[in-house]
Amino acid sequence: MIDLRSDTVTKPSQIMRDVMAKADVGDDVYGEDPTVNELERYAAELLGKEAALFVTSGTQGNQAAILTHTRPGQEAIMDEDAHVFVYEGAAISAFAGVQSRTLPHIRGEISMETLKEAIRADDVHYPETGLIWLENTHNRSGGAVLNQTYLKDVHLLAKQSRIPVHMDGARLFNAAVASNTSVRDIAQYVDSVQFCLSKGLGAPVGSILAGEQTFIEKARKKRKMLGGGLRQAGILAAPGLLALKSNIQRLAEDHDQAKRLAEAINTYTDLSVNHEVETNIIVADTHESKMTAPEWVNAMNEKDVAIIQYKPEALRFTTNLDVSKKDIDAVIEKLKDCSRKADD
Amino acid sequence: MIDLRSDTVTKPSQIMRDVMAKADVGDDVYGEDPTVNELERYAAELLGKEAALFVTSGTQGNQAAILTHTRPGQEAIMDEDAHVFVYEGAAISAFAGVQSRTLPHIRGEISMETLKEAIRADDVHYPETGLIWLENTHNRSGGAVLNQTYLKDVHLLAKQSRIPVHMDGARLFNAAVASNTSVRDIAQYVDSVQFCLSKGLGAPVGSILAGEQTFIEKARKKRKMLGGGLRQAGILAAPGLLALKSNIQRLAEDHDQAKRLAEAINTYTDLSVNHEVETNIIVADTHESKMTAPEWVNAMNEKDVAIIQYKPEALRFTTNLDVSKKDIDAVIEKLKDCSRKADD
Amino acid sequence: MIDLRSDTVTKPSQIMRDVMAKADVGDDVYGEDPTVNELERYAAELLGKEAALFVTSGTQGNQAAILTHTRPGQEAIMDEDAHVFVYEGAAISAFAGVQSRTLPHIRGEISMETLKEAIRADDVHYPETGLIWLENTHNRSGGAVLNQTYLKDVHLLAKQSRIPVHMDGARLFNAAVASNTSVRDIAQYVDSVQFCLSKGLGAPVGSILAGEQTFIEKARKKRKMLGGGLRQAGILAAPGLLALKSNIQRLAEDHDQAKRLAEAINTYTDLSVNHEVETNIIVADTHESKMTAPEWVNAMNEKDVAIIQYKPEALRFTTNLDVSKKDIDAVIEKLKDCSRKADD
Amino acid sequence: MIDLRSDTVTKPSQIMRDVMAKADVGDDVYGEDPTVNELERYAAELLGKEAALFVTSGTQGNQAAILTHTRPGQEAIMDEDAHVFVYEGAAISAFAGVQSRTLPHIRGEISMETLKEAIRADDVHYPETGLIWLENTHNRSGGAVLNQTYLKDVHLLAKQSRIPVHMDGARLFNAAVASNTSVRDIAQYVDSVQFCLSKGLGAPVGSILAGEQTFIEKARKKRKMLGGGLRQAGILAAPGLLALKSNIQRLAEDHDQAKRLAEAINTYTDLSVNHEVETNIIVADTHESKMTAPEWVNAMNEKDVAIIQYKPEALRFTTNLDVSKKDIDAVIEKLKDCSRKADD
Repeated sequence: MIDLRSDTVTKPSQIMRDVMAKADVGDDVYGEDPTVNELERYAAELLGKEAALFVTSGTQGNQAAILTHTRPGQEAIMDEDAHVFVYEGAAISAFAGVQSRTLPHIRGEISMETLKEAIRADDVHYPETGLIWLENTHNRSGGAVLNQTYLKDVHLLAKQSRIPVHMDGARLFNAAVASNTSVRDIAQYVDSVQFCLSKGLGAPVGSILAGEQTFIEKARKKRKMLGGGLRQAGILAAPGLLALKSNIQRLAEDHDQAKRLAEAINTYTDLSVNHEVETNIIVADTHESKMTAPEWVNAMNEKDVAIIQYKPEALRFTTNLDVSKKDIDAVIEKLKDCSRKADD
Repeated sequence: MIDLRSDTVTKPSQIMRDVMAKADVGDDVYGEDPTVNELERYAAELLGKEAALFVTSGTQGNQAAILTHTRPGQEAIMDEDAHVFVYEGAAISAFAGVQSRTLPHIRGEISMETLKEAIRADDVHYPETGLIWLENTHNRSGGAVLNQTYLKDVHLLAKQSRIPVHMDGARLFNAAVASNTSVRDIAQYVDSVQFCLSKGLGAPVGSILAGEQTFIEKARKKRKMLGGGLRQAGILAAPGLLALKSNIQRLAEDHDQAKRLAEAINTYTDLSVNHEVETNIIVADTHESKMTAPEWVNAMNEKDVAIIQYKPEALRFTTNLDVSKKDIDAVIEKLKDCSRKADD
Repeated sequence: MIDLRSDTVTKPSQIMRDVMAKADVGDDVYGEDPTVNELERYAAELLGKEAALFVTSGTQGNQAAILTHTRPGQEAIMDEDAHVFVYEGAAISAFAGVQSRTLPHIRGEISMETLKEAIRADDVHYPETGLIWLENTHNRSGGAVLNQTYLKDVHLLAKQSRIPVHMDGARLFNAAVASNTSVRDIAQYVDSVQFCLSKGLGAPVGSILAGEQTFIEKARKKRKMLGGGLRQAGILAAPGLLALKSNIQRLAEDHDQAKRLAEAINTYTDLSVNHEVETNIIVADTHESKMTAPEWVNAMNEKDVAIIQYKPEALRFTTNLDVSKKDIDAVIEKLKDCSRKADD
Repeated sequence: MIDLRSDTVTKPSQIMRDVMAKADVGDDVYGEDPTVNELERYAAELLGKEAALFVTSGTQGNQAAILTHTRPGQEAIMDEDAHVFVYEGAAISAFAGVQSRTLPHIRGEISMETLKEAIRADDVHYPETGLIWLENTHNRSGGAVLNQTYLKDVHLLAKQSRIPVHMDGARLFNAAVASNTSVRDIAQYVDSVQFCLSKGLGAPVGSILAGEQTFIEKARKKRKMLGGGLRQAGILAAPGLLALKSNIQRLAEDHDQAKRLAEAINTYTDLSVNHEVETNIIVADTHESKMTAPEWVNAMNEKDVAIIQYKPEALRFTTNLDVSKKDIDAVIEKLKDCSRKADD
């Protein structure tokens, strides 16, 4: 089975399993796991932030950030396709009591005018604007990379308005590699940032939340409340550290394969990839296809390729560490087959 | 001062003050205020609902409804200009832990296709859809009346999906009078409805929440938690009851005056009323005016007419019980004056 | 019917109804109700606080205070019989996300040692202590008055620990009158205080929350979220203002009648009033009575005296504005009758 | 260093590391991790429950249970030393909006009379009682085991009152081994139960929540909201499964060592262990010691023995998998040393 459903499905390599088995561990609730401490130090430095916190998932990193930045009755401004709004079980409202102010966007970027207007004036009827939310790369836009000038503009507006900015950087390293910048250059424009070790980077479990020292101290308590205070977490941190040290530059391969696959989709099938493929995600539109989205999922499944229906009329293909160039060759052939059959 | 800022500004008439002063009262927390009991009974019957609850404001009625219908981690579908989203301090998220799913709309109506798509499938990532929200008349659309066929369609979809529907009917009687139906005909399509006694109906304080008996029993506890359990509340219920018995049909006058005023605005000023004026609210666009919205507010203020800036480039005029036909004549003259001055 | 269930049951007098009917009003959401403004100014001055806020109930005043002082995940220290813990529907946890830390007490006072130990150290496992709560007079202890030296000690500890103190002074004026101090002397030891206009003071509806200017500004937004932003609220503020100006000193009569009634209970019945009667509340124990608490309630009811069962084996008698010296004479006779019957 | 601070500090053995390194994994968010699935199946069977859920900590299991059983404005009855009240950052109130009703207890057991009285009647002022909470073994009582007859009585009362019961069984297997029953016999009396793999059982990370199928399905969504939806979680499940299969019976050794150590403390030092030592936790009182609790912690630390201060005047010693009989011999000698020095 060639699995293109998500980059979360990658399995740890033998070398990862080896570092895991040998990891030096301790009780992380007491701050005594040396491998977790090293991962947090290393990640903070990489991001140019004062401190970092190992969390068990991107959702946990995002929620800990929200709980730390905001208070109930505030509003968080975000694009209307943000992962935190669509896929996190409304935890932002359920746990933090924060209202999501969702706005239209182009490839993850809300126009600066819309953003400015969305910041609430001081009035007894209004929630306060308590947070600005960015997602980079932007999942539902097909892995779009936010522009550095956009980040700078948002940063300036936020500073003027005294509103913190959080970046859901689940695929932050894809953004950096694709735009040929560093994660540090990206992270400089936000107060806090979360990235996942378990997506393209290939670690089995975990994410990092980074920011100022005092922010991370508070977030550590929120993580405990969420049940994310682990004991011998070094066995998760060790593969995470290895992933950070070994698997960043190779994300470029995933991007190359995704571009190649998108071209093939547009060339050989009646699916349409209508967005630029900047990173490892392809959203293919089924509007003009003879087959519906569920039919495509089934047809490909029968050919041992796993993809997911992403919206009512769209499919998602995600390249990743466990999918080789040769696999993509095979997928392209299978897409052609499916198209031919649909034509018959 | 002719006050067109809102229909909330009306002052109780002498007869209202008289019934207030003579109201038969008791301790309503013990269910012993005869006037409150009578108001609740009367309102429920008028709406064709099993039971009703007196609350101190539209916001309190809305929040008690949300707290009763939903649980944290659910999502409420609403139009993106809904009062509950814009003007209630994010209480829906802060108190009920519910995420607002705000959608585009035309005059308060979300397209049925958009609505259908917004109902969440069963998936571990998604919040459940816990409530569908309607606002009638729709304030930010300039007092728009929702169509009965729309209400029926929403009702059917909601039943199929087992999702309750709440109507914020702060100006429900305006909707009924303007569309020549009864509030009972409107309310039949929703599980719960809130209307205000203190807007066009002219009572000094209070709103009504209505629904099934068991719903209202639960909402009564939520009201207590919100601090809305009053003692000798009959002094508020008495004018409320009078308002319901005397002031419904006269809302037609407010609508007539609003239509006349809107025409005058379009004829004599460089403001644009771009929406049909169905009830008592006029939203006038300043985009093409020589004066900005704040300049208009000031200019009219100097002429003893109070209006409010409603959006960055819009003004709101609201006709009401305390504004006579003659007052509107005067307002029209003053608008002409302002326009002339701006032209000079 | 002589109603001793609570001091909330008092009905507005004719003069109160008159001031209500003539009250100068405006839209209080816009800050334009002159009578509300005057009440808030007058109450703040009386309490020696910078600002005050009219709320519709003691519960609303308490909840607005909690929402303003605290954030979710904090803990509020209080005695285990506090009204906010027992009678407010768990709103402190439901709306503010705050954990109640309930402690043993004697007549509303927690020992300073217990209090000190309950303040949480800084540890990733612990909630922060976010509020210290006092109730004065203390309802479930039979209207007990907190000692000024206790208040001073709590105040000092709280300052050292940088924890705000709120006083639920639903019956604050009873405390002041009974202890021959001023409400200002009491309120000096707390950051915020709430008192009710609708209990012994006899107004039909409403309470006051007072504190620093910035605190009250924030609390005003919380009140709006709770649905406590009223329109022509002057009709409630007018009797409230009258109550404050006329009905404070007469609370002494309620206290005298309560003492006399308690003595009679201990002398003529097999009920036991085991606490000092300092104010207007009597809690009478039924443990050693031939009749159970519900039997006593029924027996007295048949004789046109209303009392309430307060705990599984206790009754509460509350003297108030609508119960005269003569009424108490009658109640005492009826108690004797009931006792005689029980003996037969 | 002999580490007696907690049984959470144990490090995975070589065999555990081996199973970890070879674990068959998949994406558990998609339900595709075979090792997690096997662990959940195995644990459910062991407990006699329909289904189980792997969570990253006891806190996460407890919070997922609360979020599933209750709704905001409810009250959970628990003993006043419950872990969930003392050590989980008030998450029960912050996330679930539930009020903790904490009651006095003897070794984790609240008297049935107190429990019965604490269940709230139906009244508009009261929160509903939404959950009864048990902790077994009871940490702050020194690892006390709840009696089976007590569990049965609580179960019956809860059924009659239609209130669910949750057991925080972080050390459930210690309870079963010490009382010579099975976890299934214990779990039959509760609707849901949580136990930790990472305490005495020795796995590096993780806990299990078990209950009915529909309960676990809902809890799975709550876990996702808490950020506990992991990807290749099999690497944690594998050592968890091994722990369940290999390390249960050996808990008896920890209990034996704890008894022996407690005797020594009482014999050779001026510390007092005032409770029966049933399992692996010793709480030693410092009231009558020449040294304070922090002095004891330091003195033992200097001798390479780690213990923790547990209450202002108490120490906790916890035996565990990494502490041998010989280690306990050494600890006893060091305690004698410390005592002698203090005497000099």
